[in-house]
Amino acid sequence: MFESAELGHRIPKEVWEREVPPLREALLDAQYDLASAKRFPVILLVAGVDGSGKSETVNTLNEWMDPRHIQTVGLDAPSDEERERPHMWRYWRALPPKGKIGIFDGSWYTWPILERAYGRSKTSDLDQDMARVARFEQMLIHEGALVLKFWMHLGKDVQRKRLKGLEKDPKTRWRVTERDWEHFERYDTFRQVSERALRATSTADAPWIVVEATDPRYQRLTVGKVLLEALRARLDTPAAAPTSLAAEPRVAVDQVNVLKALDLTQRLDKQDYEEALLTYQGRLNRLTRHSNFRKHSVVLAFEGMDAAGKGGGIRRITQALDARLYQIHPVAAPTEEERAQPYLWRFWRYLPRRGKVAIFDRSWYGRVLVERVEGFCSEADWRRAYSEINEFEDQIVRSRSILLKFWLSVSLDEQLRRFQERQDTPFKRFKITDEDWRNREKWPAYEAAVCEMLDRTSTEIAPWTLVESENKYFGRIKMLRTICKRLEDEL
Amino acid sequence: MFESAELGHRIPKEVWEREVPPLREALLDAQYDLASAKRFPVILLVAGVDGSGKSETVNTLNEWMDPRHIQTVGLDAPSDEERERPHMWRYWRALPPKGKIGIFDGSWYTWPILERAYGRSKTSDLDQDMARVARFEQMLIHEGALVLKFWMHLGKDVQRKRLKGLEKDPKTRWRVTERDWEHFERYDTFRQVSERALRATSTADAPWIVVEATDPRYQRLTVGKVLLEALRARLDTPAAAPTSLAAEPRVAVDQVNVLKALDLTQRLDKQDYEEALLTYQGRLNRLTRHSNFRKHSVVLAFEGMDAAGKGGGIRRITQALDARLYQIHPVAAPTEEERAQPYLWRFWRYLPRRGKVAIFDRSWYGRVLVERVEGFCSEADWRRAYSEINEFEDQIVRSRSILLKFWLSVSLDEQLRRFQERQDTPFKRFKITDEDWRNREKWPAYEAAVCEMLDRTSTEIAPWTLVESENKYFGRIKMLRTICKRLEDEL
Repeated sequence: MFESAELGHRIPKEVWEREVPPLREALLDAQYDLASAKRFPVILLVAGVDGSGKSETVNTLNEWMDPRHIQTVGLDAPSDEERERPHMWRYWRALPPKGKIGIFDGSWYTWPILERAYGRSKTSDLDQDMARVARFEQMLIHEGALVLKFWMHLGKDVQRKRLKGLEKDPKTRWRVTERDWEHFERYDTFRQVSERALRATSTADAPWIVVEATDPRYQRLTVGKVLLEALRARLDTPAAAPTSLAAEPRVAVDQVNVLKALDLTQRLDKQDYEEALLTYQGRLNRLTRHSNFRKHSVVLAFEGMDAAGKGGGIRRITQALDARLYQIHPVAAPTEEERAQPYLWRFWRYLPRRGKVAIFDRSWYGRVLVERVEGFCSEADWRRAYSEINEFEDQIVRSRSILLKFWLSVSLDEQLRRFQERQDTPFKRFKITDEDWRNREKWPAYEAAVCEMLDRTSTEIAPWTLVESENKYFGRIKMLRTICKRLEDEL
Repeated sequence: MFESAELGHRIPKEVWEREVPPLREALLDAQYDLASAKRFPVILLVAGVDGSGKSETVNTLNEWMDPRHIQTVGLDAPSDEERERPHMWRYWRALPPKGKIGIFDGSWYTWPILERAYGRSKTSDLDQDMARVARFEQMLIHEGALVLKFWMHLGKDVQRKRLKGLEKDPKTRWRVTERDWEHFERYDTFRQVSERALRATSTADAPWIVVEATDPRYQRLTVGKVLLEALRARLDTPAAAPTSLAAEPRVAVDQVNVLKALDLTQRLDKQDYEEALLTYQGRLNRLTRHSNFRKHSVVLAFEGMDAAGKGGGIRRITQALDARLYQIHPVAAPTEEERAQPYLWRFWRYLPRRGKVAIFDRSWYGRVLVERVEGFCSEADWRRAYSEINEFEDQIVRSRSILLKFWLSVSLDEQLRRFQERQDTPFKRFKITDEDWRNREKWPAYEAAVCEMLDRTSTEIAPWTLVESENKYFGRIKMLRTICKRLEDEL
């Protein structure tokens, strides 16, 4: 993998002086096209061994281009707000919006490679991490990002010389730390681990570009030219027309599905409900004061047809919680800043810190429900969303977050009854819109989408809870009981 | 101040049961009007002595209304990301957008009052803090927020009984901490300090509403009714038509002004420039590696007429910096999320952590420059902006941030020359727009706005540096030298 980066590539000074000025102009030009079209973001990773001129290369790119449209991200120690969320949260919050170039000096590769090289993790851990990284990058690419990954390589001898050279010069001595030498002693291990990581993540859409770092001129010219070529190729290809065909519900050979299999006749009478409500709200309240509660965060997602009882259910839950603990995120159309980012970004941004509860009233499942049925995204987009969502939830769960997902089920008849009731109740008037009536007509399409969603995303780590919500009392108690049960298991 | 809150107000159960249902309906109704109109945010503070049912009141409001449109903020310990920024940053980031209700349980009052009550600060400190708070709230109100401040009051005997009562009941014992008793021992001091704080911040637009907390029914009904009344009053008043008259430049009695007094003939020849550039960039680079650099953050703001050399100046500065240290924020039209917040919010959000540099290419001064001249805001808006900006900068500086502001000055002739040059240079084409030509015609109006800005915002703590930028070389070196000098003084 590193062989062609040990050939002693060099660029003579006169070539450099001839080639850099037009390259800079062309890069600037491409950058302005990027900034004005705002069609896609550029994510550029600079990785590699110590002393291989990573930050110098990053600085050169900032110098050559207009730094106002570049976001450079260094890998500082994570802040406490970052440590309390899934590992990838700090990268999600640093993603460049469409039209900008985000340069990552240190990235999602740094930690897994270091851990493995120091023997603090196993090869199988590295492989798993790299598989996750590959899926993450695949998602970025599907969401339109141009992903460029540069690996700066130095042969062992060259690296030793480089470190010694830096150390000798009083002006650069500060840059060589003990940690650099410590890493150097593990050069062979690092090489082996890095090669394994690169192999696993060198995909067709985001291959690693290994750059020999012996000669800075060669190194920077290579990075600049690869970036230019990739930028131009994307900019000069017209944006593909979004293929947003509304998907037809697929005909099932029988009429059986998980939703229809639910027993919607289950009910609680008012008195039993009120008693159970007090019991479970009390239990839930005590659980949030459990000493272990602060070691976790809680994510609750509520989905269901219109008028299925999401709002009422959520209120019965929040009644049991201290208002300072939770934040409800009603999910509607994304904002401008959210539209400039990958689809899941708007949900990542609201993941809670430890000891806090995030409640999503509708959620990331909009992608495979409303966006699918209404044709707001292409079939390819919602098809890949299942695995992206599973990945997202895997990361939530792995960060010691407690995730619960509820599907609230009502019959078409009951929905009609509730719509009519709402229209007759003055202070609930807001709740019923023309769109709600239109959505009713698409019930079969929604039902098909829901069934496929449940099939594909009810996983062992993040199972769906199906809530028979035909009788509101029954539904609410089922949700409260499920949450209490789950917290008791986890705390 | 607290007398009428020690009268033993009580609401009998039957009154409560009669009045609460219609109050809830009316509150919900008002809340939906608020959410759909998105005209203003509601900022509701709940403060007062310990054990006075603050969080119970907050929970009641969340229960009565739709918690999906409420953001409740508790006062946890500040995170490291918050500690490294001005004190008010954590409140700015928690401000509700237009259409939402933000409830603060603990607020910008908590800390100053505690510090004074424990004798860790002086009365004069408290007075200064409260003056700042009053200015902050005044700004929120001018920006359209509805600000409601509730102070929950308990007489000394009642508080003692309340704490003992809570302690006795095994279900509530956990809620009484040693700190509560410690506070109680200082009841009289707290009362005196609170009264002073409340007096200083009870303004016509945001008066304190002192609520007796002895009887929970009285307390909650009062808060609910005051909130409803205030909401309805604002909602039922049609939005005032924005009085956005473009301001005429005021005629000066002579032609002398600070801009005209600048000696724009100052220049550097290319060779001197290149030498000086190397020297100052080297100095700047070394300064950013000074061990004290990490104890500060740096904020640089650049303003100037079009083509005055802001971009080029910024690049000569960033060339000296590690790209991971800085972030450039080009200031253009605000995003949708920014428009839902007070004007300064979009700048607060980008204030840097310690050890980092935030560079604003155009800045918060847009309010008193382009927005004033083009009539994008009312005269009242830009007039009050001067003191709001001074306040903002005061907070930046007091948080150990190093703030520098540059005005880049060119003549009308030189601007024309640069415009023409840009139009003739293919890869700079992006830089010159019709708007730039239009702005030229408004030069006198801009000049008047700039002079007034300099007069009103060049303060001892945050002076403007006027940069004679007619000769780019001279201007760039002056900026670099100023930054080096300032860092040397501070580090």
